[in-house]
Amino acid sequence: MGRFPVPDVEDVPDDLQDRITEETERAGFTPNVFSAYAYKPSHFRAFFAYYDALVEDTPLAREEVEMLVVATSGVNDCLYCVVAHGALCRIYAEAPKLADQLATNHRQADVSAEHRAMLDFAVKLTESPERITDDDLEQLRDAGFSEEEIWDVGAVTAFFNLSNRMAALADMRPNDEFYEMGR
Amino acid sequence: MGRFPVPDVEDVPDDLQDRITEETERAGFTPNVFSAYAYKPSHFRAFFAYYDALVEDTPLAREEVEMLVVATSGVNDCLYCVVAHGALCRIYAEAPKLADQLATNHRQADVSAEHRAMLDFAVKLTESPERITDDDLEQLRDAGFSEEEIWDVGAVTAFFNLSNRMAALADMRPNDEFYEMGR
Amino acid sequence: MGRFPVPDVEDVPDDLQDRITEETERAGFTPNVFSAYAYKPSHFRAFFAYYDALVEDTPLAREEVEMLVVATSGVNDCLYCVVAHGALCRIYAEAPKLADQLATNHRQADVSAEHRAMLDFAVKLTESPERITDDDLEQLRDAGFSEEEIWDVGAVTAFFNLSNRMAALADMRPNDEFYEMGR
Amino acid sequence: MGRFPVPDVEDVPDDLQDRITEETERAGFTPNVFSAYAYKPSHFRAFFAYYDALVEDTPLAREEVEMLVVATSGVNDCLYCVVAHGALCRIYAEAPKLADQLATNHRQADVSAEHRAMLDFAVKLTESPERITDDDLEQLRDAGFSEEEIWDVGAVTAFFNLSNRMAALADMRPNDEFYEMGR
Amino acid sequence: MGRFPVPDVEDVPDDLQDRITEETERAGFTPNVFSAYAYKPSHFRAFFAYYDALVEDTPLAREEVEMLVVATSGVNDCLYCVVAHGALCRIYAEAPKLADQLATNHRQADVSAEHRAMLDFAVKLTESPERITDDDLEQLRDAGFSEEEIWDVGAVTAFFNLSNRMAALADMRPNDEFYEMGR
Amino acid sequence: MGRFPVPDVEDVPDDLQDRITEETERAGFTPNVFSAYAYKPSHFRAFFAYYDALVEDTPLAREEVEMLVVATSGVNDCLYCVVAHGALCRIYAEAPKLADQLATNHRQADVSAEHRAMLDFAVKLTESPERITDDDLEQLRDAGFSEEEIWDVGAVTAFFNLSNRMAALADMRPNDEFYEMGR
Repeated sequence: MGRFPVPDVEDVPDDLQDRITEETERAGFTPNVFSAYAYKPSHFRAFFAYYDALVEDTPLAREEVEMLVVATSGVNDCLYCVVAHGALCRIYAEAPKLADQLATNHRQADVSAEHRAMLDFAVKLTESPERITDDDLEQLRDAGFSEEEIWDVGAVTAFFNLSNRMAALADMRPNDEFYEMGR
Repeated sequence: MGRFPVPDVEDVPDDLQDRITEETERAGFTPNVFSAYAYKPSHFRAFFAYYDALVEDTPLAREEVEMLVVATSGVNDCLYCVVAHGALCRIYAEAPKLADQLATNHRQADVSAEHRAMLDFAVKLTESPERITDDDLEQLRDAGFSEEEIWDVGAVTAFFNLSNRMAALADMRPNDEFYEMGR
Repeated sequence: MGRFPVPDVEDVPDDLQDRITEETERAGFTPNVFSAYAYKPSHFRAFFAYYDALVEDTPLAREEVEMLVVATSGVNDCLYCVVAHGALCRIYAEAPKLADQLATNHRQADVSAEHRAMLDFAVKLTESPERITDDDLEQLRDAGFSEEEIWDVGAVTAFFNLSNRMAALADMRPNDEFYEMGR
Repeated sequence: MGRFPVPDVEDVPDDLQDRITEETERAGFTPNVFSAYAYKPSHFRAFFAYYDALVEDTPLAREEVEMLVVATSGVNDCLYCVVAHGALCRIYAEAPKLADQLATNHRQADVSAEHRAMLDFAVKLTESPERITDDDLEQLRDAGFSEEEIWDVGAVTAFFNLSNRMAALADMRPNDEFYEMGR
Repeated sequence: MGRFPVPDVEDVPDDLQDRITEETERAGFTPNVFSAYAYKPSHFRAFFAYYDALVEDTPLAREEVEMLVVATSGVNDCLYCVVAHGALCRIYAEAPKLADQLATNHRQADVSAEHRAMLDFAVKLTESPERITDDDLEQLRDAGFSEEEIWDVGAVTAFFNLSNRMAALADMRPNDEFYEMGR
Repeated sequence: MGRFPVPDVEDVPDDLQDRITEETERAGFTPNVFSAYAYKPSHFRAFFAYYDALVEDTPLAREEVEMLVVATSGVNDCLYCVVAHGALCRIYAEAPKLADQLATNHRQADVSAEHRAMLDFAVKLTESPERITDDDLEQLRDAGFSEEEIWDVGAVTAFFNLSNRMAALADMRPNDEFYEMGR
């Protein structure tokens, strides 16, 4: 995490302090993505506001969101997101093995056919967005996803294509705690 | 643009109406990304707040931001972003040929050595984020970019990796006006 | 264009002078591919004779030829061919937006189903010629292309895989005029 | 060879008959590329005129031309060109093992450092023409190649990127004789 | 694990029974690779004899062997090997986080410069064996690896390119126990 | 073959000497893979024991094994295996052209539909093992392959993914004799 300076929490704007405090209390430690993003407060606000919208305003189950994050981050080889969201995936899905499966190869994960379709879409949108066609969305509809769910599947995937690259830029490293949570 | 419904502007929340009105007055037409994102107001707010932070709170020149957008979107074969931000790139850089060059092959664009280094970084972060190393950042420093500029170069690139995928998801198409602006 | 010397037009053999004069009168300027190829007269003659055969002896409409050129050159990231033939594509197809669409992502271009099949074939023949099968030709037949048209679709694509590489070798750059023609 | 009709030699224009007769007498059989191209006489003339220019008007040794052809065709997995020009490569280089080495992996071929540089350039121009830079040409100069030789190295490579795709289009198959010649 | 029948342990030849019993006693459960390979006893014997040679007759530390296995299997997206050897990697290296790091992106793993060189070599040998050159071996020598260690680094990597593909063929799945061992 | 020392045959353990003598008598020369592997006797034993199991305990015809080896090695650009097993392929299949076809592009080889399915599977398992699905095995069953044959098709392919990488590691070169055998 040495590529950009990480400010002390007491030196950052109040709204960032509040969010960091809240997250620290919830998790028991400060997830490094909050420390890293504190380097630039305007981006901190924008990033977490977008993230909040994705997880709070969606018909997707939280475990589905986290499954998408882990599979996308696995394709992009993003250590921070695989490990930190792997923890959330295990916890929300109550499935201790799921994150390791999704990060390695979603095709071998123990998931329903519906979730397999969802993950296939996320991986294609990550690897070759230029090849997404109406047929790809049709397969999600056939798997039972509503219109808004399809938008959200794509939106979560798109957001973590941003997030994976921010982690690569800043060389973000997962907190030790994440490796073990939910196992 | 037929994959998700596009609401009438009068049916969307007031803050979205205000933003859409403002953009429409500025451009003389409503850029389709605003219409497309109006499908989901919480995402509309998050997306444009992030975008605003990227272009308003940065030591990068606006033309540099748009150069990054066009080169990134060219790699991802994203028609909406190549054409819409190609227009902005031509206008801000006052360089009618630049966007076509960047969208096709940034290695053949008429840019300074500094901007070539900036674009090389953006293309690498887009194509293989897992391979970004300290050396890549060092090359930006050697080209004269400050720490915050480097963060912002990466952040713009990361954001358009999101944006390109949202355009692919919703099959966003550029307004006709963009093709000709700034030529 | 500085990798190989560009001879003065008065110093090249008469037949090259005649062709260059003719092209200059037609276009109002000398397209740089003629200047670049004048470096080696025997190759100049061979290259343009092949090109002439492709555009003059074919049941394909000229706009179809230029669509193929732009899509192929987009895959190969060839600035000269994208811009110079983009101009021709706009003019022959009377479609100001078409070249930008084809160069960025032919899958999002405003083209008929027949032309989509034609372009899919060209892109596959460019990207992975070793995987072309009878089925690929069958899809062109199903789209209404005659035997000779199929040959010519492939021949134009193959020729611009040559041309794109000659432009890369000699670092050919499009004349300024091409960027704006036909818009 | 069943994708396009192969005309009887007596039914093709006189100049094609003359060339086919000449090649048949030289080789002892009619190489299938002549039969295949006879489907479209204007393309036959253009293709072989270009080929003749490449092999007749060049300071490159003929064995160098054939080495380039085999390495390029190996990258493109083109059976016709690997086998037919593999025969020519063996004969002109008087090196029975060379073609198999170049077609499989030019990095393990028994060639001089100069020829290794030449082949590295050809493989890069084939695989990623958009990445060719001044440095790549400089390496050829450092290896002793003259300006015209560099042009010709690129031109041969470019031409066989055309040729490999025409063979893929028409499903050209090498004559049995080629497999054994020069061994 | 349903693609090939898994025989009951009492139905397999005595030497296989002995090995399976030994492994089961050591681990507390029967690792699925033993069950899967029991389908074909001659291959069972060959596979485990090779594996034994790799881990028993080598100057490499066992933790180094397991690091190589996890990084290689991560590149090949092999769930069985990532999870089963991830457990061994954690145990032998006494490093609970190491396997997750190596499986996701060895470039972000907490390893010494020597081990980074070792893993870079393994990843290159896995992804593009045709590009391995003397320089690659030189980098291992510079990092302090002896001649035999270099052979063994390559041999372990090569063997797991076999193993990953056998797991893909038979759809081998890691035992539940492996996910948690050594954390 | 200069990356690792090649011991004199009289200096290697007796069982290796016996095997080398046997192979030398059979072939009339010592295939270089035996010389190269003699560097490390424990690996020599393991490698050839595995190989023996693959060719001796299988319902596949020996020519089928060698076809798999050549196609796999062609994908991996492995000169040693393409040339040495190309010789075996020609001999066992009594088909002088087959190895050159398989090494270049198995899609253009003169093989039955059954063997085409077999080779398609081998190439996929080599290029993208993570994408092998039940459907891929079903296609082999549909082509008439038994359960054990399918295992063996995969096992041969997997083994030569090891072998190709050992040849890359040690820079193994085929004996001159192999180039001509069976033509």
